[in-house]
Amino acid sequence: MELWITEQQNEDVNFTCRVKRTIYSEKTEFQQVDIMETEYFGKMMVLDGVIQTTTFDEFVYHEMIVHVPMLSHPDPKRILVIGGGDGGSVREIIRHKSVEKVDWVDIDGRVIEICKAYLPEWNSTVWGSPLVEQKTEDGLKHMKESQGMYDVIIVDCSDPVGPGELLFTYEFYKDIFGALKEDGLFVQQTESPFYHRELIKRIQKDVKSIYPITGLYTANIPTYPSGLHCFTIGSKKYDPASPVRFADFEPRWYTAKTHEASFVLPRFVEELTETEY
Amino acid sequence: MELWITEQQNEDVNFTCRVKRTIYSEKTEFQQVDIMETEYFGKMMVLDGVIQTTTFDEFVYHEMIVHVPMLSHPDPKRILVIGGGDGGSVREIIRHKSVEKVDWVDIDGRVIEICKAYLPEWNSTVWGSPLVEQKTEDGLKHMKESQGMYDVIIVDCSDPVGPGELLFTYEFYKDIFGALKEDGLFVQQTESPFYHRELIKRIQKDVKSIYPITGLYTANIPTYPSGLHCFTIGSKKYDPASPVRFADFEPRWYTAKTHEASFVLPRFVEELTETEY
Repeated sequence: MELWITEQQNEDVNFTCRVKRTIYSEKTEFQQVDIMETEYFGKMMVLDGVIQTTTFDEFVYHEMIVHVPMLSHPDPKRILVIGGGDGGSVREIIRHKSVEKVDWVDIDGRVIEICKAYLPEWNSTVWGSPLVEQKTEDGLKHMKESQGMYDVIIVDCSDPVGPGELLFTYEFYKDIFGALKEDGLFVQQTESPFYHRELIKRIQKDVKSIYPITGLYTANIPTYPSGLHCFTIGSKKYDPASPVRFADFEPRWYTAKTHEASFVLPRFVEELTETEY
Repeated sequence: MELWITEQQNEDVNFTCRVKRTIYSEKTEFQQVDIMETEYFGKMMVLDGVIQTTTFDEFVYHEMIVHVPMLSHPDPKRILVIGGGDGGSVREIIRHKSVEKVDWVDIDGRVIEICKAYLPEWNSTVWGSPLVEQKTEDGLKHMKESQGMYDVIIVDCSDPVGPGELLFTYEFYKDIFGALKEDGLFVQQTESPFYHRELIKRIQKDVKSIYPITGLYTANIPTYPSGLHCFTIGSKKYDPASPVRFADFEPRWYTAKTHEASFVLPRFVEELTETEY
């Protein structure tokens, strides 16, 4: 018997890969969680049929969503992660020596428990760390109760459907602004510049209307639709397009030059930051 | 009835898209050629089951394989294209005012005829141009007979299986060296830094052993495996990592800054240029 998993990237495009076995499946209060072992991409975590993270390329996503904002800030101490149930983002954050506390808030505690049990490669260093406090809570609620608290906020959310939908709104970006210190910045994964152009334009418009500095950068993540993914930054003070510090560890993807190059947008992507929505 | 086309990106990964209709199919002397109309990617040309080019993203590939080498050369006049049967590369070359003559050599004349008939969006400007001479010929043979003739050689080939196989050898790179002028350079599409790492390493080693300057750069092409594609340059004199001229036309993807950023390799890709094969 051959076992294959198919992700519907949209109505007209499917991405399919061969599966060795299903490691674990559960329908939580919020979503369907599946942990698969695939032939080519290693382990894979899937939420509601959408590929979230794989052994093959998780390092690109987690390094680029974390190290770009963290190394744009001269001394990030207090960090908030919203989502990121697999633990990869928190793992990368605690590699930074300046960090004193990471609040890690995910609305679905079962995803975190499942990833702790079945994806230890992603998060084993996280669970032993005294810096990390994990809370199963609504990220929006947490934000409203955390005025001026954070240096860096990382929104490591799923697609803007289901539990993640409210994390792509003007109100949410305003609440993040309130939860940041006066020189803080936030980053959010904001889908593909090829597949989700209207969404990205709208987010750019919203973030620009709230933050003095807005950035858009890209990274190559083969198991995400189109293979080109983008990230949006809103910053109160620091320009995220150039690192102010070097990493004192050795990432597999990120370098200081890659940081800068990730903000150099091809014309077709640059358009998303220029056009009035 | 639903019609879908599936590309086997490798044994364990498939890419599938919804098809409106088959526009044309033919088995030539060399390969199976299919022109499809897809829902999401527009028109698509497929050789032996492998996606070559689509309306959706052909501009990225053709701009990046052409404008990077062309704008690294101060005055490219005589150009050779090997392969590139859809005409997109020749179309981009003749946008450069310095060009006096383009020799366009493809071993499979039927592919060129079929693309002329069914993909005029790719190549209609090519057929009216007095600069372009199209020859149905073996690229390797042409190269040996063209000593010191070209400023820029563009190897716009298919994968290193079937007709394209001999275009990825040490001997071929030596023959290109012979066909270039004393300050010439060549570029070749060299697959995905995620999926074809051993191939890229071997090509880097071969090209480095022949050319004084070797470059590797990337571009994002969603319908190619992994979405990240790379290109290898061998140059006798000019550094391809920075343009020496600006384009006097307006590409959709390429900019001078994108040119430079495309040579900034993430560590995971940089490794391919460093490691001894």
